[in-house]
Amino acid sequence: MNVLLTCAGRRNYLVKFFQHALKGRGQVLAADASAEAPAFRDADESFVVPMLSDPAYIDALLTICRQRCVRLLISPNDLELQALARNRDRFLEGGTIAVVSSLEVTDKCFDKWESLKFLKACNLDAPATYLSLTDVREALARGDITFPLVIKPRWGTTAIGIEYPEDREELELDYLLARKRIQRTCLWEMSATDPERCILIQKRLCGQEYGLDVVNDLDGRHVCTLVKRKLAMRAGQTDRAITVKSDRLEKIGEVIGRELGHVGVLDCDVMVTEEGCYVLDLNPRIGGGYPFSHMAGANLPAALMAWANCEQPDTRWLQVEPNIVTSKYDMLAIVNDPQPTINPRLKTAVQQPVALAKCTL
Amino acid sequence: MNVLLTCAGRRNYLVKFFQHALKGRGQVLAADASAEAPAFRDADESFVVPMLSDPAYIDALLTICRQRCVRLLISPNDLELQALARNRDRFLEGGTIAVVSSLEVTDKCFDKWESLKFLKACNLDAPATYLSLTDVREALARGDITFPLVIKPRWGTTAIGIEYPEDREELELDYLLARKRIQRTCLWEMSATDPERCILIQKRLCGQEYGLDVVNDLDGRHVCTLVKRKLAMRAGQTDRAITVKSDRLEKIGEVIGRELGHVGVLDCDVMVTEEGCYVLDLNPRIGGGYPFSHMAGANLPAALMAWANCEQPDTRWLQVEPNIVTSKYDMLAIVNDPQPTINPRLKTAVQQPVALAKCTL
Repeated sequence: MNVLLTCAGRRNYLVKFFQHALKGRGQVLAADASAEAPAFRDADESFVVPMLSDPAYIDALLTICRQRCVRLLISPNDLELQALARNRDRFLEGGTIAVVSSLEVTDKCFDKWESLKFLKACNLDAPATYLSLTDVREALARGDITFPLVIKPRWGTTAIGIEYPEDREELELDYLLARKRIQRTCLWEMSATDPERCILIQKRLCGQEYGLDVVNDLDGRHVCTLVKRKLAMRAGQTDRAITVKSDRLEKIGEVIGRELGHVGVLDCDVMVTEEGCYVLDLNPRIGGGYPFSHMAGANLPAALMAWANCEQPDTRWLQVEPNIVTSKYDMLAIVNDPQPTINPRLKTAVQQPVALAKCTL
Repeated sequence: MNVLLTCAGRRNYLVKFFQHALKGRGQVLAADASAEAPAFRDADESFVVPMLSDPAYIDALLTICRQRCVRLLISPNDLELQALARNRDRFLEGGTIAVVSSLEVTDKCFDKWESLKFLKACNLDAPATYLSLTDVREALARGDITFPLVIKPRWGTTAIGIEYPEDREELELDYLLARKRIQRTCLWEMSATDPERCILIQKRLCGQEYGLDVVNDLDGRHVCTLVKRKLAMRAGQTDRAITVKSDRLEKIGEVIGRELGHVGVLDCDVMVTEEGCYVLDLNPRIGGGYPFSHMAGANLPAALMAWANCEQPDTRWLQVEPNIVTSKYDMLAIVNDPQPTINPRLKTAVQQPVALAKCTL
């Protein structure tokens, strides 16, 4: 079975995890808008595709899937999930399972206000949240909420546009700036659908942050939840984490997975404080936190492949050993070398994109 | 010869570059405040030391240098350069060359206003810069400067506290916020020495950014300048870059290296616009941009070792092949595994810190 990883970028580890799970019984293909994506160094074959924002993007992926008999398509990027969800059937017609949830689910997760309503309906806690400066001013006056607060885009990704006001003056200044600046980001297209209510103001919780991999099968049935405590963050991503056993957090993952019915893995952040567990974010795709589970023994790639083959995954692939601390670190790859010396796959990885880019643009 | 890398963190590549240059004729030791630093996985021996801000920090480094006969001490972190500069003679007494400039040079580089005065004295261009909101308002009224602008801490590091106001309203809001927030950062100790003038407001230049490794020998004599064009940034660091041949930028590096007389390598950012070349920043240490030169053929570790041995470095170590595109990517390492399977060095790397931490705390 061949697997296509989109937005491959610098996610070389994902390429390797899937290659290892395939054990030579198929290839891992990588797609990216840049011919210089480092993940191309490790992929079996690589494809330069149009930018996400280009209307030709989905057709380019469909062409690769058809030409290379791709069975599983994996996306690690929030910004393409809705487009993939809209086109799931087109991929399926060609025999490709895009590991992506329904449009209803991707919409619900990408709109953080809708996520909060969903969590409330599940009786799960989330931080107190307001959709306007007027509302939060009133809540502050009533004493319903206290500083510090968080300001974030309602439709957001990574750490773009997040601020932490610590008093009223900062709140007013940050809100004014956020309103102006969101229009200059890649988030504006979504935000413009409700421009008066495109910024959330939340209570900033003080506690320990956890990352959950909420694993559903390809039919959206909950299977397991893998839990990690975050030890360090960098550029909005988890940089270091430790696996933990937590019945309480696994139960939260189970409720989310069962009620949401997402497809494959959902990356979820939870803040644990003295008062309880507060769900911060729902991202229905393989997240930057998954490798910490993988290093501690999980093998989600193998489980996804088993489900795609209508087989039952080995139960060990859906468990982690607790107390494993894993850290990301930087490596370097020359990405335009026409005479590869390190990776024998390089020639394909560099030459194919040029050939295929021609036929997909 | 043994080499000690401080603040090793996730800089596994630096550990490997030095190991490779040593060719087995010495060890690369790593120090970090966290026992879970991923660079410990690759170092020959690793040491948990107090935090930079701890008064015991320098003594801990001195102890390691003495106990392990360290010949070269390399720091990649702006925030410790001044303390190392103040203690250069103490290291030298024990036979360790701390590859760090004089206190005069480190002070000049860490204070961006002093850096600008230095550049002006060298007849090098830098962006138009103001030290107060009043000054920049007047300059805007006179038409001496136009939007967009940059606001940054005068004593700054990485991308902490940088904002990009695009009009007068954003300028006023960002400045107010910067004044309040700088007090909550690790930069406040330095900024408090001149709190009324601790924020710079600069013209935001539109052009192509380059990174220079300005290489001086251990006596502060300029040797060469290696030039890279930045292709992508992430969290304030260069993520992807291409080596270039540029007489104009090499000449700028030569002037800086000669006039500043720093020790070892200085990392420097230059913005090239249609109007000219503007120097943005001077960082007198091995920077996050050096690995892009190394991947293109440079071997600064080997050159530093040669100078430490009073030998002449091979001229090839101080050259790069042009047009090499290199990208960083993420890798993962388990950092608390008591039963190493990947790296045979692990046992030392994990057990030594505990032992030595006791004697240095």
